[in-house]
Amino acid sequence: MIKKTKNTKDSKEIKHKPWMLTYVGDHQVSHDVSIESRSYDRASLSLKTYSSLDEYTSHSESDTTTWVEVNGIHDTTITKSVCEKAAVHGVNIEDILNTKQRPKIESNNEYIFVTLKAISYNEEKETFIKEQISIILKDNLVISFSQFPNDIFKRLKAELSVEDSFLRQKNAGFLFYRIIDLIVDGYFKVGDQIDSEIAIIEDALDNSDNEIIEDVYWLKKELLYLKKAIYPINDIVKHLVRTEKKNFSSETIFFFKDTMDHCLQINESISLNQELVTSFYDLYLSNINKKTNEVMMYLTLFSTIFIPLTYIVGVYGMNFKNMPELDYKYGYIAIMIVQFVIGIGIYSYFKKKKWLNSSE
Amino acid sequence: MIKKTKNTKDSKEIKHKPWMLTYVGDHQVSHDVSIESRSYDRASLSLKTYSSLDEYTSHSESDTTTWVEVNGIHDTTITKSVCEKAAVHGVNIEDILNTKQRPKIESNNEYIFVTLKAISYNEEKETFIKEQISIILKDNLVISFSQFPNDIFKRLKAELSVEDSFLRQKNAGFLFYRIIDLIVDGYFKVGDQIDSEIAIIEDALDNSDNEIIEDVYWLKKELLYLKKAIYPINDIVKHLVRTEKKNFSSETIFFFKDTMDHCLQINESISLNQELVTSFYDLYLSNINKKTNEVMMYLTLFSTIFIPLTYIVGVYGMNFKNMPELDYKYGYIAIMIVQFVIGIGIYSYFKKKKWLNSSE
Amino acid sequence: MIKKTKNTKDSKEIKHKPWMLTYVGDHQVSHDVSIESRSYDRASLSLKTYSSLDEYTSHSESDTTTWVEVNGIHDTTITKSVCEKAAVHGVNIEDILNTKQRPKIESNNEYIFVTLKAISYNEEKETFIKEQISIILKDNLVISFSQFPNDIFKRLKAELSVEDSFLRQKNAGFLFYRIIDLIVDGYFKVGDQIDSEIAIIEDALDNSDNEIIEDVYWLKKELLYLKKAIYPINDIVKHLVRTEKKNFSSETIFFFKDTMDHCLQINESISLNQELVTSFYDLYLSNINKKTNEVMMYLTLFSTIFIPLTYIVGVYGMNFKNMPELDYKYGYIAIMIVQFVIGIGIYSYFKKKKWLNSSE
Amino acid sequence: MIKKTKNTKDSKEIKHKPWMLTYVGDHQVSHDVSIESRSYDRASLSLKTYSSLDEYTSHSESDTTTWVEVNGIHDTTITKSVCEKAAVHGVNIEDILNTKQRPKIESNNEYIFVTLKAISYNEEKETFIKEQISIILKDNLVISFSQFPNDIFKRLKAELSVEDSFLRQKNAGFLFYRIIDLIVDGYFKVGDQIDSEIAIIEDALDNSDNEIIEDVYWLKKELLYLKKAIYPINDIVKHLVRTEKKNFSSETIFFFKDTMDHCLQINESISLNQELVTSFYDLYLSNINKKTNEVMMYLTLFSTIFIPLTYIVGVYGMNFKNMPELDYKYGYIAIMIVQFVIGIGIYSYFKKKKWLNSSE
Amino acid sequence: MIKKTKNTKDSKEIKHKPWMLTYVGDHQVSHDVSIESRSYDRASLSLKTYSSLDEYTSHSESDTTTWVEVNGIHDTTITKSVCEKAAVHGVNIEDILNTKQRPKIESNNEYIFVTLKAISYNEEKETFIKEQISIILKDNLVISFSQFPNDIFKRLKAELSVEDSFLRQKNAGFLFYRIIDLIVDGYFKVGDQIDSEIAIIEDALDNSDNEIIEDVYWLKKELLYLKKAIYPINDIVKHLVRTEKKNFSSETIFFFKDTMDHCLQINESISLNQELVTSFYDLYLSNINKKTNEVMMYLTLFSTIFIPLTYIVGVYGMNFKNMPELDYKYGYIAIMIVQFVIGIGIYSYFKKKKWLNSSE
Ligand SMILES: [Mg+2]
Ligand SMILES: [Mg+2]
Ligand SMILES: [Mg+2]
Ligand SMILES: [Mg+2]
Ligand SMILES: [Mg+2]
Ligand SMILES: [Mg+2]
Ligand SMILES: [Mg+2]
Ligand SMILES: [Mg+2]
Ligand SMILES: [Mg+2]
Ligand SMILES: [Mg+2]
Ligand SMILES: [Mg+2]
Ligand SMILES: [Mg+2]
Ligand SMILES: [Mg+2]
Ligand SMILES: [Mg+2]
Ligand SMILES: [Mg+2]
Ligand SMILES: [Mg+2]
Ligand SMILES: [Mg+2]
Ligand SMILES: [Mg+2]
Ligand SMILES: [Mg+2]
Ligand SMILES: [Mg+2]
Ligand SMILES: [Mg+2]
Ligand SMILES: [Mg+2]
Ligand SMILES: [Mg+2]
Ligand SMILES: [Mg+2]
Ligand SMILES: [Mg+2]
Ligand SMILES: [Mg+2]
Ligand SMILES: [Mg+2]
Ligand SMILES: [Mg+2]
Ligand SMILES: [Mg+2]
Ligand SMILES: [Mg+2]
Ligand SMILES: [Mg+2]
Repeated sequence: MIKKTKNTKDSKEIKHKPWMLTYVGDHQVSHDVSIESRSYDRASLSLKTYSSLDEYTSHSESDTTTWVEVNGIHDTTITKSVCEKAAVHGVNIEDILNTKQRPKIESNNEYIFVTLKAISYNEEKETFIKEQISIILKDNLVISFSQFPNDIFKRLKAELSVEDSFLRQKNAGFLFYRIIDLIVDGYFKVGDQIDSEIAIIEDALDNSDNEIIEDVYWLKKELLYLKKAIYPINDIVKHLVRTEKKNFSSETIFFFKDTMDHCLQINESISLNQELVTSFYDLYLSNINKKTNEVMMYLTLFSTIFIPLTYIVGVYGMNFKNMPELDYKYGYIAIMIVQFVIGIGIYSYFKKKKWLNSSE
Repeated sequence: MIKKTKNTKDSKEIKHKPWMLTYVGDHQVSHDVSIESRSYDRASLSLKTYSSLDEYTSHSESDTTTWVEVNGIHDTTITKSVCEKAAVHGVNIEDILNTKQRPKIESNNEYIFVTLKAISYNEEKETFIKEQISIILKDNLVISFSQFPNDIFKRLKAELSVEDSFLRQKNAGFLFYRIIDLIVDGYFKVGDQIDSEIAIIEDALDNSDNEIIEDVYWLKKELLYLKKAIYPINDIVKHLVRTEKKNFSSETIFFFKDTMDHCLQINESISLNQELVTSFYDLYLSNINKKTNEVMMYLTLFSTIFIPLTYIVGVYGMNFKNMPELDYKYGYIAIMIVQFVIGIGIYSYFKKKKWLNSSE
Repeated sequence: MIKKTKNTKDSKEIKHKPWMLTYVGDHQVSHDVSIESRSYDRASLSLKTYSSLDEYTSHSESDTTTWVEVNGIHDTTITKSVCEKAAVHGVNIEDILNTKQRPKIESNNEYIFVTLKAISYNEEKETFIKEQISIILKDNLVISFSQFPNDIFKRLKAELSVEDSFLRQKNAGFLFYRIIDLIVDGYFKVGDQIDSEIAIIEDALDNSDNEIIEDVYWLKKELLYLKKAIYPINDIVKHLVRTEKKNFSSETIFFFKDTMDHCLQINESISLNQELVTSFYDLYLSNINKKTNEVMMYLTLFSTIFIPLTYIVGVYGMNFKNMPELDYKYGYIAIMIVQFVIGIGIYSYFKKKKWLNSSE
Repeated sequence: MIKKTKNTKDSKEIKHKPWMLTYVGDHQVSHDVSIESRSYDRASLSLKTYSSLDEYTSHSESDTTTWVEVNGIHDTTITKSVCEKAAVHGVNIEDILNTKQRPKIESNNEYIFVTLKAISYNEEKETFIKEQISIILKDNLVISFSQFPNDIFKRLKAELSVEDSFLRQKNAGFLFYRIIDLIVDGYFKVGDQIDSEIAIIEDALDNSDNEIIEDVYWLKKELLYLKKAIYPINDIVKHLVRTEKKNFSSETIFFFKDTMDHCLQINESISLNQELVTSFYDLYLSNINKKTNEVMMYLTLFSTIFIPLTYIVGVYGMNFKNMPELDYKYGYIAIMIVQFVIGIGIYSYFKKKKWLNSSE
Repeated sequence: MIKKTKNTKDSKEIKHKPWMLTYVGDHQVSHDVSIESRSYDRASLSLKTYSSLDEYTSHSESDTTTWVEVNGIHDTTITKSVCEKAAVHGVNIEDILNTKQRPKIESNNEYIFVTLKAISYNEEKETFIKEQISIILKDNLVISFSQFPNDIFKRLKAELSVEDSFLRQKNAGFLFYRIIDLIVDGYFKVGDQIDSEIAIIEDALDNSDNEIIEDVYWLKKELLYLKKAIYPINDIVKHLVRTEKKNFSSETIFFFKDTMDHCLQINESISLNQELVTSFYDLYLSNINKKTNEVMMYLTLFSTIFIPLTYIVGVYGMNFKNMPELDYKYGYIAIMIVQFVIGIGIYSYFKKKKWLNSSE
């Protein structure tokens, strides 16, 4: 089940001067920042890995498509340098560094800037990991910034390594599309994970497992945070399809429409699950009230039958000197019969009221 | 009643390269894929059935209208070949193969592509079956892809077999309309099935049947999934009526408007039933709390009357040596009268408080 | 109170070929279909009643306004003939015959077609009767189709019979307006009936009448169905005011604006009542929980006071040989005082906790 | 607190012919209708009071601004005459007479017509009084119709009586603005009254006052009716600002924008309070369930401790001849110790389960 | 935790004549109003502090940018004078003085006027402080009005004091942007405070702390008021970006877009937390019902086992002369065995029903 999530502060790191840059995110990041640069066309691919900023030079102004991949954004100097070499505005550099940034698109005459959340499920920690990915498209250059070292782009790199592959045949706009498409594809795995959480809760409610109701809250909260991370993608891809036709080939626009479709689908799926989760409370409350009602009926049946009878035997347990019935020969048997009749009478009344039907 | 539904995974089969094709759906599909091709005009109809792809050729470029019906999409080679012969883009081929695809319309200069869900109720399994139907309109050719062998198009075929029938008089655009209209008509049967499920629950709640509340959840879930499958049709038909006027005769547009109307109607009907289902929880909770309250009042009545009396008889059951009352001649009868008065007093108090009105 | 409503099937009668006509509605209709035709201008009025279709001829192409009123639509032949003589399209004929049709407007170069629900409250059956009324405006001809024989148009006919009355001075467009206006006026009576249902429930909840909660559900359901029948009128009249200015005099448009206003008002009124009805569940649940709580407090008070005391007297009712207290002279009186102190103590504790305030 | 409100019928008085006029409202109106006419410019002010219609003549066509104030609308003859002298259309006269009329604006080439609800709180009756005010602006003439004699316009009259006051400097359009602004200002007092009702309920819920929950319903209902009366103002003022620029000076438009702002503010305030009121049910239900739970825990604690002990003492109260324990010397003391141990055991178990924490 | 908030009256101070000015807000304001004026360009900065209005002159018409900062608005004379020297319209002066004013933007040919709420959390009083800030941009003059003396602008002043700083390089439009941006940045701290309130409630619900539920209401109310204060900012900044391009450099518009983004983010964050808070009621109700159910099951178990047994021992405690069982040698042992069997039977029945699983 989804575990309790702790919120990290959003505000401290919000700078009062947007052109002064700070990293906003988990402070315990320890991995080194690496920069990989791939320049390719149909025929050739050259890969460079930079261990320090000094070596890194902006891409050559040749005809090849260049993909600069920055792994890690906590070293603000590197991010800033890479961005400034591509003339990216300080406001967008700040967006790259702020891992709390809402997914957004910014396009101007110089470049298109998109920042998104890649989401994956961590089986061990039983939480969803949200990683900020920022992508810049500028002429034949694509720069991507990832928060953590990860495998998201493994497939892309494999494909790039194959000569004359579909990706190698296309331009930088298509590479930009592929990165976004890859992130959106990842959301379907998130959807499946949520489906299995839902199934676990459904089973638990069926088996009257009382402990499940707290997990419902954490799932509900997670769904809200997932929607917050995923929902803005809709508008970003719609913006790309509608107003950026000049920057992409018509085929890439066609592919983007397909991605737009997937965004719609994943958002509908989350909304649907949100409605299911909300109705778990109603279902649980109905179940627990049903159970309480059943238990109460048993208690009431036993109590209302035996309470008068116990009273009667109490009467004849009194030690008054003058209690003539006590001396009757059939007093005992008579009073036992009277009690039996009373007991049956109360039971029949309950039966007639149908109070016991549901519990038998 | 609607049975528990198991979700199948949405993600595994989502390919990372949209131009590489895989079937996404139930893996236990075993029926053979068959292709039927009907070429017709007012006067003539020719029917060809292809058992293998080799024989299948694209439709002749003659003046007749051709309907190619593909039954089964799990054999990706067949779907791909048929599509490629009609120059359908790979992204749409993938949509045809992905049975989790959201209903959508795609129209370009070459063809109009629509993918929908045909829904029917399986009496035996007590579930709704959602079958993906994809339809392509390209000039005078209509291609339809169905997920399972089925009777949806039986009526259409019967009508086609009649010489100079209304359908035979019309062009491919009208055939395209008829297929969509047929699917939408099927939704009304779904609506009726839901109405009877609602009626069953209403009766059960009336008769205080406690077991029904779990079924409410499964009906609520099914309604959410039905809405997800049906709702997008609204926009698809609206798009056809508004922006595809050039591809259809004005009469076909007139018919499409009627279908648009039906889409609106079925969606309103589902929304209405969703509101009813939601209020079942409130009704159930009210009923069960009412019942608990009634039971509690009986228990409290019996308890509060007999508890003090039982105490009193307990007092005179004590074995103290020095209890003068025990020796009084009328001690017994006096204490019984006192108890009777106390009992009546408590009962009257309850009566005055109107606590027992509702349960008598 | 509103009675339980049974839903009739929507689907069976939905034809798969829209140009083949069937009546969709209650099958037990037994009244004969009658056709009345009124041709009028300021000075003259001629009324013809047709008992069979043969006699009926379309209206003369003269300058008079003609109103053809068809009472009953279950005889499809009559409806079809009347429509075809006015060149009404088959799709609209089907709408006239389908009593489950959503209220809609269809306007083309030839005619304006509107179908609505006239709603009235049947005091005897305690249900709302929804009758489908369809109206066609074509040049100086108005045709109306009613589902049942009824008094809705009585006022209109009376007014027509007065020479030079306001209605007689106006053209067919104004007659068309008056019919729609009459139906909308009827909705205000529906609103008043709902207001009195609400008032009954409010009183019952005030008097803690537990039986009322089931009626709340049926009222909620009825409101949903009323909204479904009434809500689309908004758009129909708005469409008439905005896009049909050429077919109506500017004064008629002015009157239509007033009707639009009434539509808005009745829809707001229904929405408001829906919100009230929803909060009845909350109010009922609060009331019943309050009552349960009060009852529980009485039970707990009596129980917690007498349970320890009853135990104590039980102790001294034991038959052990060696129980020295039993032989003390003041044993009995001492133990009774101890019990009194314990009883008062528990009662005071309850008092201090304010548990009994609300119930005294 | 807000008292129960009785709805008055909306429909009876709705005329089937909009050009035939009837008063729709409270029938017990008894005050006389008075007409006051003020003609003014910077320098001069002339006030005429008409006791009968005969004396009343339409305003002179001079350059002065004229304000005709009609107090009372239940005498339809007067309203009709005044309106007809200003050539107001019958449909708008009907709106003036129908006190159930939704607030609306109607503007044509001749005049601007606005009908609103002035709302005030009646301390004595503890209800909100909704009074319909209709205002017509026609050239340099303003006519206002009020339902009851009242003090709403007192301030306006005072200001008019001062020579060269701001109001006297301006034209009829500004007077029209001032009347609407005055009515909107009144809504803020309504808002404050609601705030104090909310505060009373908050206090009552804090002090566990069980009787408050019924008042919550009446406040909720009142808020719905207030919103129905106030909400349409938004659109009316927006319409005035956006499409009636030709009829007002740019400064008056500037003032109207400020009023628009106030309308927004009061509507937000009502919506906010509606959300608070809705959550009172949740809070009450939580509180009452908490209290029930606490009471139950006390009952259960006492019962589970003493029930086994009472059983044990019952066992040794049996009168069997052969019960060896009864004869043991330390039988009594032993059984009392056993009971003490059992009692402590059960109490500790409860403690460990933390069931008693919340109530101590 | 958030404390109970008392609402202050909104209406009394609403003037019936918008051009007559009164301060609307807390009456206990005691600090003096101070005016600081800063004129600057890249090279020079001159700071003047005015202790009385007489000394204050409007800014020189030189090329320098001037920022007039008014601390305190309760002295209406000062506010009015400062505004009138800048030719600000009376309606906007009233907005500045009305601390209940909804955040709004007003732009005309002369100036841009914005009024906002700066929000901060007061740790001591445990409430959010909402301070009204109004800002006017007129040519190269910026005037700001703050309700209380505060540190919001400290950073801005520090930056201004540095020669050739980013802010000193820019014009008045940029200063206007910085003030708004500073206020929006403050909202993120509000967001963090809410997150920690949410966390406290989550922990309390986890630990079954019953007292927390009242705090939930106050947090819910505070969120509603925060949303009311913050939500309108969205539209204000959107308006600045879309329709005021002529008044700001394209770079300032770029910065405003970033602020727009932050507004969106903070509003989403508040909405998300509103949904969480609402579900606390459901969670609490589920928890408390679960607890009640558990307690009831214990009570029922003990009661239903011991009630029949206590009855049986009562029977043999009766003092009838003729009770043969009492004389049997193994009567006592036999009846004890019978009771043991009955007790085990009832316990097993409970076990089989799984009623005790959840509580063990
Ligand atoms: Mg955040
Ligand atoms: Mg935040
Ligand atoms: Mg799914
Ligand atoms: Mg999913
Ligand atoms: Mg999915
Ligand atoms: Mg919920
Ligand atoms: Mg709920
Ligand atoms: Mg409960
Ligand atoms: Mg899915
Ligand atoms: Mg239906
Ligand atoms: Mg249905
Ligand atoms: Mg519910
Ligand atoms: Mg239907
Ligand atoms: Mg139906
Ligand atoms: Mg009404
Ligand atoms: Mg009403
Ligand atoms: Mg009504
Ligand atoms: Mg409800
Ligand atoms: Mg509810
Ligand atoms: Mg309850
Ligand atoms: Mg009304
Ligand atoms: Mg307020
Ligand atoms: Mg207010
Ligand atoms: Mg208020
Ligand atoms: Mg509620
Ligand atoms: Mg709720
Ligand atoms: Mg409850
Ligand atoms: Mg306010
Ligand atoms: Mg946050
Ligand atoms: Mg936050
Ligand atoms: Mg709630």
